[in-house]
Amino acid sequence: MRFHDVFSFLLRLSAATAAAVTSCGRAAESADLIVTNGYVLTMNDRKDIHENGAVIIKDARIIAIGPASLAAQFTAPKTIDARGAIVMPGMINTHTHASMTVFRGLGDDVPDRLRALIFPLEKALVNRELVYWGGLHGMIEMVQGGVTAIANMYYFEDEVARAAKQLGLRGVFGQTVINFPAPDAPEPYGGIALAKKFAAEYRGDPLITPAIAPHAPYTLDAAHLRIIARESETLNLPVLMHVAEMTDEVATIRKEHNQTPIEYLDAIGLLNRRLIAAHCIFVNDSDIALLKARDVGIAHNMVANIKSAKGVAPALKMFNAGLRVGLGTDGPMSGNTLDIIGQLGYVAKLHKLDNHDRNVMLAVTVVEMATRGGARALHLEDRIGSLETGKLADVILIDRDATHMIPFYDAYSTLVYAAGPRDVRTTIIHGRVVMEDRKVLTVDVADVAAHMRTIAAGISAAVAKGIR
Amino acid sequence: MRFHDVFSFLLRLSAATAAAVTSCGRAAESADLIVTNGYVLTMNDRKDIHENGAVIIKDARIIAIGPASLAAQFTAPKTIDARGAIVMPGMINTHTHASMTVFRGLGDDVPDRLRALIFPLEKALVNRELVYWGGLHGMIEMVQGGVTAIANMYYFEDEVARAAKQLGLRGVFGQTVINFPAPDAPEPYGGIALAKKFAAEYRGDPLITPAIAPHAPYTLDAAHLRIIARESETLNLPVLMHVAEMTDEVATIRKEHNQTPIEYLDAIGLLNRRLIAAHCIFVNDSDIALLKARDVGIAHNMVANIKSAKGVAPALKMFNAGLRVGLGTDGPMSGNTLDIIGQLGYVAKLHKLDNHDRNVMLAVTVVEMATRGGARALHLEDRIGSLETGKLADVILIDRDATHMIPFYDAYSTLVYAAGPRDVRTTIIHGRVVMEDRKVLTVDVADVAAHMRTIAAGISAAVAKGIR
Repeated sequence: MRFHDVFSFLLRLSAATAAAVTSCGRAAESADLIVTNGYVLTMNDRKDIHENGAVIIKDARIIAIGPASLAAQFTAPKTIDARGAIVMPGMINTHTHASMTVFRGLGDDVPDRLRALIFPLEKALVNRELVYWGGLHGMIEMVQGGVTAIANMYYFEDEVARAAKQLGLRGVFGQTVINFPAPDAPEPYGGIALAKKFAAEYRGDPLITPAIAPHAPYTLDAAHLRIIARESETLNLPVLMHVAEMTDEVATIRKEHNQTPIEYLDAIGLLNRRLIAAHCIFVNDSDIALLKARDVGIAHNMVANIKSAKGVAPALKMFNAGLRVGLGTDGPMSGNTLDIIGQLGYVAKLHKLDNHDRNVMLAVTVVEMATRGGARALHLEDRIGSLETGKLADVILIDRDATHMIPFYDAYSTLVYAAGPRDVRTTIIHGRVVMEDRKVLTVDVADVAAHMRTIAAGISAAVAKGIR
Repeated sequence: MRFHDVFSFLLRLSAATAAAVTSCGRAAESADLIVTNGYVLTMNDRKDIHENGAVIIKDARIIAIGPASLAAQFTAPKTIDARGAIVMPGMINTHTHASMTVFRGLGDDVPDRLRALIFPLEKALVNRELVYWGGLHGMIEMVQGGVTAIANMYYFEDEVARAAKQLGLRGVFGQTVINFPAPDAPEPYGGIALAKKFAAEYRGDPLITPAIAPHAPYTLDAAHLRIIARESETLNLPVLMHVAEMTDEVATIRKEHNQTPIEYLDAIGLLNRRLIAAHCIFVNDSDIALLKARDVGIAHNMVANIKSAKGVAPALKMFNAGLRVGLGTDGPMSGNTLDIIGQLGYVAKLHKLDNHDRNVMLAVTVVEMATRGGARALHLEDRIGSLETGKLADVILIDRDATHMIPFYDAYSTLVYAAGPRDVRTTIIHGRVVMEDRKVLTVDVADVAAHMRTIAAGISAAVAKGIR
């Protein structure tokens, strides 16, 4: 019997007495926010569920969790009635490029999009304003879909961080470094200096973790990758990077270094606990062992990887080997939507297909990857990823009332195989209610959409003139 | 310049005059329903789009379609303002078992579910009441997700048809026949007599097309399959059947008849234009040629097929060969959700992955499969599947305002890669507004949900007592 069960048992035994005592003057403990009457999925080690439960929040942290009767022991200026909802840890998007919402749906289904379309578009059109509005729009979509923490990489990353602060979204934000002149850095590799400036600006921020984002092993030379490895160590900066994503990448590194991308990054000094490696599609068993030994975080982007016909990363094998595997959407030119709920079904089904076994990649495993797995991938599992006393209060409510959510036999199954992003009712991040009953409270969603439409009109005009 | 463009041009030239003439007594043509100011995807042969368009409906049919200015030429008791929405043909779910919503989410991820779980549950629990309420609930979900026509197969199929009539959903409804005592027929093959009775009851109904549904080649003997083939011919009854879905099925028919399932059904006499064959995962090039020659309709159920790790049906190859390929969800124990929008992204991405080519199974092809392809699979393409003058008015509105739907560069891309079932705003079937602004108008959704919860509680109790 765990602590909260004992607590609950005693509470039930003495409910009348306790109420009397409270009314006689023994003050209930003060909190900031009470979420009660929900179906609480803790995602703790034992996967405890409180079928009618409460989560008590104070100073941005969970201070108590248990059966709904717990709520009576606390007073708070705000109580959220979670009746008819699943209450669970916020989902974590471990790899995205939120600002690319401005390009969403442009040139889908065309070959070699990265070089033929994305890089030219970015070169011609990306500026501070686009990054800010596109980033804010993308992050609104994530909050609406129950994402409470992200790992994002792009140009002008300080603009994305600024938008995230306004919205109230947590994240690891990586300033991009690449071997050609970028929208935010006229000199190749100019992103390194920008990353150091950005890191200094946000160090110690409760929501924003600044990071450096070398684009990929094939778009930076070894000398600069080594510089980044050193800066990361000196400044304790997380590194976000696309890794083992492309067959070209694998072939080039094999040819030039006779190594796998993983071995190559290890030799460079980048393979360590500060690295969050996106994709890892083309990794062999020895690579997986090395990733595990170096304690690297893995962002698994199922939808984007299959839309581009790249393949199914061995995420189940990595998860079973104990690696830190979280889920990601990739950017909205790659996977189009930015919520994690939309990834769950794909992750479950593609690994069943890939393994020719309907009994693998269980729903509960997928939900774990979306929550604790994501926290582990970002090396933030001591702070977020589950609903437990002492953790930061990143909590979402998912409605169980929509037609497709009925009946409700198994919460994990319902989440993975039936739920959609619109079923998210309320999103709480760092103890703050960012969206309540589908209304985003911190920024003006319609105003952001209006800015997006203006930016998109400019992009359409540029494309019509032949930017491609 | 097509007809409606000319029409629109003339209208613009003489707008003031036309209005004057009308007010001077030349009566505008009367209609039942006008849908205007929408982004109209016709899905006709030329894939015409009216960026600001109107659809005029009378006597359950589309009597005019074109630019929004067209609306001024008609009067109707009701006008729907489709501003901010895509207006398109309703989607068609070519294979489902709607009543199985009562079992949704029960025992996902377990091996040999059909024999170990589904058949025993059905034997113990399925009755008229369950079929009616489960069917109605499932069909409500479809209407909410923009489905306007279905092919359904189950026991007590007359109850599903009754529920569909109440809701106002179009469909081909197949009474199941199987080689063991079924919930609705104590004798093996008792479904044949039930199907004949059901067919007589609904013959000529504008919404309900009765059909016979032999479960699969491996669950009926050849003698009874031949009887069904004859009845189908005599009564001109569509036949719904699971075909080439299981590796066991393929192996057994190879062993017993030295044929593929497709060759076997052809020899039986079932392979013809009345057959709607669900799945067709294990078909070779010669099978595909035979299916084409016999003009069989194909229901492609991507999500269900990969969730059960069966494989990716060669649907693209079949589509390219000119076969009648539509999309289906399969039952909610197989694919869990029943809307077709949720299938679109899977279909696009899985075929890219399976073909190792991101430039195949384009978004526009997927939308075609979901609409015209479905109509062709059901052999109803002369009546539904596109927005064209003379076709029955099965029309849906999909909102473009949600965060994930912005920007809007390409309608097909947005539908396939970003839209969700909750984006459907309004569903019109046979000229009747069945759902408007997300509110289902024909049945009491909350009352149906309450019945579902009662039935589900009974099922939970039965499972707890060890039905498995």
